[in-house]
Amino acid sequence: MDIKALIQRRERLLGTQMPLFYEEPIHIIRGEGVNLFDADGKQYVDMYNNVPCVGHANPRVVNAMQTQAATLNVHSRYLHEGILDYAERLLGLHAESLSRAVFCCTGTEASEIALRMARAATGGRGIICTDATYHGNSTEVVRLSAASRDPEGNPEIRAIPYPQQYRSLDSNASEAELCALYLANVRAAIDDLAANNIPLAGMMVCSLMVNEGLPDIPAGFMAGAAEMVRVAGGVFIADEVQAGFCRSGRWWGYEESDFVPDIAIMGKPMGAGLPLAGVVARDELVDAFRKKTRYFNTFASSPLQAAVGMAVLDVIEDDDVRSNVNSVGNYLRAALDQLQTDYEPMGDVRSHGLSIAIDWVTDRESKAPDTEGVNRVINRLKEKGFLMGSGGSLRNALKIRPPLIFSRENADAFLTAFRETLQEFYGSA
Amino acid sequence: MDIKALIQRRERLLGTQMPLFYEEPIHIIRGEGVNLFDADGKQYVDMYNNVPCVGHANPRVVNAMQTQAATLNVHSRYLHEGILDYAERLLGLHAESLSRAVFCCTGTEASEIALRMARAATGGRGIICTDATYHGNSTEVVRLSAASRDPEGNPEIRAIPYPQQYRSLDSNASEAELCALYLANVRAAIDDLAANNIPLAGMMVCSLMVNEGLPDIPAGFMAGAAEMVRVAGGVFIADEVQAGFCRSGRWWGYEESDFVPDIAIMGKPMGAGLPLAGVVARDELVDAFRKKTRYFNTFASSPLQAAVGMAVLDVIEDDDVRSNVNSVGNYLRAALDQLQTDYEPMGDVRSHGLSIAIDWVTDRESKAPDTEGVNRVINRLKEKGFLMGSGGSLRNALKIRPPLIFSRENADAFLTAFRETLQEFYGSA
Repeated sequence: MDIKALIQRRERLLGTQMPLFYEEPIHIIRGEGVNLFDADGKQYVDMYNNVPCVGHANPRVVNAMQTQAATLNVHSRYLHEGILDYAERLLGLHAESLSRAVFCCTGTEASEIALRMARAATGGRGIICTDATYHGNSTEVVRLSAASRDPEGNPEIRAIPYPQQYRSLDSNASEAELCALYLANVRAAIDDLAANNIPLAGMMVCSLMVNEGLPDIPAGFMAGAAEMVRVAGGVFIADEVQAGFCRSGRWWGYEESDFVPDIAIMGKPMGAGLPLAGVVARDELVDAFRKKTRYFNTFASSPLQAAVGMAVLDVIEDDDVRSNVNSVGNYLRAALDQLQTDYEPMGDVRSHGLSIAIDWVTDRESKAPDTEGVNRVINRLKEKGFLMGSGGSLRNALKIRPPLIFSRENADAFLTAFRETLQEFYGSA
Repeated sequence: MDIKALIQRRERLLGTQMPLFYEEPIHIIRGEGVNLFDADGKQYVDMYNNVPCVGHANPRVVNAMQTQAATLNVHSRYLHEGILDYAERLLGLHAESLSRAVFCCTGTEASEIALRMARAATGGRGIICTDATYHGNSTEVVRLSAASRDPEGNPEIRAIPYPQQYRSLDSNASEAELCALYLANVRAAIDDLAANNIPLAGMMVCSLMVNEGLPDIPAGFMAGAAEMVRVAGGVFIADEVQAGFCRSGRWWGYEESDFVPDIAIMGKPMGAGLPLAGVVARDELVDAFRKKTRYFNTFASSPLQAAVGMAVLDVIEDDDVRSNVNSVGNYLRAALDQLQTDYEPMGDVRSHGLSIAIDWVTDRESKAPDTEGVNRVINRLKEKGFLMGSGGSLRNALKIRPPLIFSRENADAFLTAFRETLQEFYGSA
């Protein structure tokens, strides 16, 4: 297969500048478990994809999809028990106060629902987010990503510096002092909205701040921010699209970050590849949203979404996937911490379960981000058969987030290849 | 099965005021072809659902879904031929100028892409739509529906009276005069945006104005409006979510309404129930969009979307579904025209292929909309085993839009039940 010809055909049909991974993109034709296979039969261990959380082509998920599609798949203005059973089970996994669900198809749609819900319920308009966030690609939701670059163009949004400990606002501050510093920015955003006569609707953050680069959030920040926002009349929205469904070793990122949101957004792993996303929230918030918007989504709350979503939960629980995330996550983290002592470019290793970020730097002193270095490592590991990506606010974090069934053997194979790569590029430890 | 208990459970889990059909909602558990079956085994002929265009649980579609899901389903930042083959085939069915595709998951997302594309390519902000439209449920897209009620709250949107012949702006005008009258409203909207220093981005309309009530659009309106918009620097966006995929008897509603758009939006029937939607447009529009937005959609352009979308096209072409739409559509229309001569409440019968609207009125003279009457008919036909809905700008149109495989035998069965219902409610002809 001629990769260049394939890229040209792609540009002709789908347009130029459609995102594509790797210096030499790969042509994947099959997936199974944690493995992907290219057109030449080369096998890759997938350490990038969080959507196929229970493994590529999981037979139970595929079977549930096939069985339901062959039986019934229709919109939600008829009664059907499937979506009720699914909603009940999903809500049962959440904090008790999150008691009603709204389903949709993508994380972007879930973010749209959350924003509309916050505004419908509070009557406010102002939204607080972080300065390195991404919650989706609609006109309204991209405002959150754009607000830090263009505050005047997004007058209802306030972007605060995301809380972190590695490149913090004050390198001499204790964790508690840092928490107070970052909370002061939330306070300032609330006050600035008020000063501009923009009533607060809420604050929206990824529970683990994955796009920001999975920072070590100072303890107490999330609960403190949520409290501040509520006192000011807003609601606190947790984006669980990347943080949820056991990624952190707990069911939800907000458990890992020790707070309870008013609204939680879910997506990516929820349907293991079937477009399935949703929002859970407190009763009165969902009711205010439905009353105000009469929200209806043709493809959502369907028997197909319910059956597939349920199969994903079945596999996670029956196969005790959460224990695997904790044990393999801890194992991998310990090995990476060990490697970090030998390799200067691994400036900071941060993780929650099987979501890991390694902050790649030119040197430990300056902490200058080394995007070129991390990309060299990513492309070399791809050659060696391990797929991962980069991310974070400075684009210099090695982003590791394999399917949740990633095993200790997979981790060992990766660690061997990673050590080899570090040796090739940076010399023996 | 206790319907009331099911409704209560639904309200508890999904919130109150989630849309539900019929005075006595139905509990559907299985679908096959044009038929749906409830929990008591009662069979219904589905004359409402346009999503399962090739029939409920179509075996070829289900098989394509199962086979691909068992093989690979991953995001689009790796190369895959499936989505390229599908894009090429889909683009081949469109006007030659629509040469590149962007895929997403829902009609709302497709509308978002079209709006962002129009604005990215033109640098404009202003959008013209009709005063009875619905293009989706995101914050930005609902502005189009809200603009006629709240023009000041939506300063970049101009809603024009939708063109029609039944309750037209001037009942004495000829069709050509009506066309000129309605085009004058487009002109006025363009001028008003310019007077307010809002550069035009474009105009967005359903090619058959289905939500407006499937009006008989004065000939020449759509092409005339498109020309006006282009001269003013905007692009013309055709919403094919309901109008496309042979619903009208032609592949696209814009062919039926005799114009070529710059951007076309697709959804609903595209994946026969799998969330699959998309946009096709001229090269430079897609490229401007991709360059400006770096659009990426986790679940879209996937091997699964491609396989299912392709299977839908296969069935439509192999089973000559388009011919069926034309022959059954014409047959049904002729019978309804005949019935109209006997029944006063059938104020106006309008159709394109298997999209039919019967404008229900209290009397022919006043043309006063009879929403109660149409709902009584819909609920009675449901009891007799035929599912349809109401719609249109006045909510008084009987909306008929069965799966495209709806047969002449299905039509005869419906016509018998419909005649019976008319006799019951309005006496013998």
